[in-house]
Amino acid sequence: MLNKNILVLGAGRSSAALITYLLQQAVQFGWKITVGDVVLKHAQAHVGNHPHGEAIIFSIDDTEASASIIATADVVISLLPAHLHPKAAELCLKHRKHLITASYVSEEMKQFDAEAKQQGLLFLNECGLDPGIDHMSAMQVIDRIKTTGAEITSFESFTGGLIAPETDPQNPWRYKFTWNPRNVVMAGQSTARFLQEGKYRYIPYQQLFTRTTPIVVPGLGAYEGYANRDSLKYLETYRLDNIQTMIRGTLRNQGYCSAWNVLVQLGCCDDSFIMEDSEGMTHRQFIQSFLPAGKSAEEIISSLFNIKIDGEEIKRLTWSGLFSDELIGLEAGSPARILEHILNKRWKLVPGDKDFIVMWHRFRYTQAGKQKCIEAYLTSTGSDEVQTAMAKTVGLPLGIAAKLLLQNTFRAVGVVIPVTFEFYAPILAELSLNGIALQEQEVNY
Amino acid sequence: MLNKNILVLGAGRSSAALITYLLQQAVQFGWKITVGDVVLKHAQAHVGNHPHGEAIIFSIDDTEASASIIATADVVISLLPAHLHPKAAELCLKHRKHLITASYVSEEMKQFDAEAKQQGLLFLNECGLDPGIDHMSAMQVIDRIKTTGAEITSFESFTGGLIAPETDPQNPWRYKFTWNPRNVVMAGQSTARFLQEGKYRYIPYQQLFTRTTPIVVPGLGAYEGYANRDSLKYLETYRLDNIQTMIRGTLRNQGYCSAWNVLVQLGCCDDSFIMEDSEGMTHRQFIQSFLPAGKSAEEIISSLFNIKIDGEEIKRLTWSGLFSDELIGLEAGSPARILEHILNKRWKLVPGDKDFIVMWHRFRYTQAGKQKCIEAYLTSTGSDEVQTAMAKTVGLPLGIAAKLLLQNTFRAVGVVIPVTFEFYAPILAELSLNGIALQEQEVNY
Repeated sequence: MLNKNILVLGAGRSSAALITYLLQQAVQFGWKITVGDVVLKHAQAHVGNHPHGEAIIFSIDDTEASASIIATADVVISLLPAHLHPKAAELCLKHRKHLITASYVSEEMKQFDAEAKQQGLLFLNECGLDPGIDHMSAMQVIDRIKTTGAEITSFESFTGGLIAPETDPQNPWRYKFTWNPRNVVMAGQSTARFLQEGKYRYIPYQQLFTRTTPIVVPGLGAYEGYANRDSLKYLETYRLDNIQTMIRGTLRNQGYCSAWNVLVQLGCCDDSFIMEDSEGMTHRQFIQSFLPAGKSAEEIISSLFNIKIDGEEIKRLTWSGLFSDELIGLEAGSPARILEHILNKRWKLVPGDKDFIVMWHRFRYTQAGKQKCIEAYLTSTGSDEVQTAMAKTVGLPLGIAAKLLLQNTFRAVGVVIPVTFEFYAPILAELSLNGIALQEQEVNY
Repeated sequence: MLNKNILVLGAGRSSAALITYLLQQAVQFGWKITVGDVVLKHAQAHVGNHPHGEAIIFSIDDTEASASIIATADVVISLLPAHLHPKAAELCLKHRKHLITASYVSEEMKQFDAEAKQQGLLFLNECGLDPGIDHMSAMQVIDRIKTTGAEITSFESFTGGLIAPETDPQNPWRYKFTWNPRNVVMAGQSTARFLQEGKYRYIPYQQLFTRTTPIVVPGLGAYEGYANRDSLKYLETYRLDNIQTMIRGTLRNQGYCSAWNVLVQLGCCDDSFIMEDSEGMTHRQFIQSFLPAGKSAEEIISSLFNIKIDGEEIKRLTWSGLFSDELIGLEAGSPARILEHILNKRWKLVPGDKDFIVMWHRFRYTQAGKQKCIEAYLTSTGSDEVQTAMAKTVGLPLGIAAKLLLQNTFRAVGVVIPVTFEFYAPILAELSLNGIALQEQEVNY
């Protein structure tokens, strides 16, 4: 008889490493790992014939079946699309189950805090890579600096899921889809809010990819970052009262943002309406529908954005097939859906591809009257196109948290994120044993 | 005993001319005009002691009271904010009353079509200025051209509510708020969709104010227009099957769009979040929060947008007080709410101000193998800051439609817009008696 049942909801792109880890632990601790997905074979692909694993059909829309499945679990790990977490949370509350996710705490999720606390349940969110390892690795440094009596004056943090230098060397974006492609296409659509030199600052979508931050990672080279959502809400959770600069963002290889900006500016990432006549449309016709009439799409873009026709932006768009005369092959869709479909033709990981995670933090602080600065980074390379670095860095923290939870390591209850010692210390320690660890160095302020 | 009761919901900015017109007609036809507003004195201000008028409190949120008020009406004219029309429509259906609005037909409003038809009720929408007179005046020309056997190949239509040349001569925008200021600040946020030379075209918000159309109105001068929402949906309602170009838009004085674009690009029209610490903030600090740190706001904007620091855009922003050190004076708000509040200080009509409507259409068509073109325009000048041209051109078509409806002139039922002869012919005829009429001229194709 297996003594505990961990239920994983969703067996998509980022579940591989999580399920592998949980099955390994299951053998040692006598657990059962149940993996549910709307498509049974997706769950089966990960579970195989493992004696501690079971693959099942799970559809959150089928409330009755979902409830009886959740009722059998001891802890639920939800990899469902973020907007479905509240449904899972509701069932977890009803059946008194702990819940772990890698997603941002939404306003809806927050509403469960009081009741979860009352029932002694932990709803741990933002426990993947970004959000997740970024919070934990940053808080470990921040808390350590603060114990010396120093005051943190600035915190900047950028993370990106890229491709390894040896992968797809012709790809000028140095990028492929390593997590939900839709989220990549829709990225940045909520206004970025952060603190810079003591002032609140706001960057709307239309400016986001032009107002980038240069980032240099020791031994790796130069990157660029764009601000990500609402950094201000972490002022309180990070316990940074008198800080002057606080910004979190997304890291990309140089040149990505100015090329992506062309698509943003043209409206190709718009998800608010269904395009006319997209069936039978070519990639080039898709782009043309966002341009004024005139010469070739390349010429018009070059003149609209004041960029060279043989420059880096047009080169990237061309490489991604946006000027190709091939058919899109999608019956109907919003611009965002169609762009995702087009990009997926060139941006999908193929056998042999390895992805590459880069996380970078910069902490500035005042210690004994002196201004100091620490730069830190963490990288991870995928094993192949399935066991990706993305799946590993999102999945391992979730799996480790589930294990620690079943071992009664955590005292916190309610809707929380892993920014306190009880979470980050043991999770980072085990990640480090798996080769995922922050490298730090003191640099000139 | 008065024989009919016309109920006007909302006694705001654009109700003056409508109520004046209805009260005049009421005397002749023995009607009662009931004007309801959440603020009783707003309704009273328009009704005065008129023997045929009654001012009442009306709040659509009080469903019970609203129902009993609507139950006493013969026809309801809703000037409520557009998102409240469906609530009014629901009560109208329940109590079998006709409904007239000047707003775009929303998806929600469309849903009432079948039931309204079944009950023999007319729900007439888009019967103000724009949408309204633009539809009617265009359809009159289109139908006339088509009766000659000609084929319409292109239709372009732009309308704007501006200020009269003699009003506020120092105002470089040549613009003030003559209808709901919030709608002006939020204008353009849904992607513009239109047909141009046989191709579907899309312009997102971030491009809208840079991709303008030059417009020359005979005897008046040069203007500029930006595309407005979804022109494609009118292909069918206008019965324009083989047309190559179909675009509707908003008309502004030259220079408005490039200055407004600065505010759009910076994110000042964003309504998605509440700004931090806006209490105690100055106009200049508001603008600065959307800029990177650095020199003066004027210098940063000039360099960000590659515009001259003493150029037309900065001049307009300065005139509107955006670089002033005065306090905003609003407790909390989204960027859009705060911008509206700042602009309202300079863009509010003051005693003596006269507004000015300009509507312009261009029809291209093929007649007996020849390519022909008609340009047409309509203007209207306000009497003063209350009896505005905007109130007159929005209110009169509504009032005339209500009168014709009570006289059983219309056969159409269901959710409709005034694009057919039975609506546009009598309404345009009476508007013409009030000095509101389209001037046409044939020009070179």
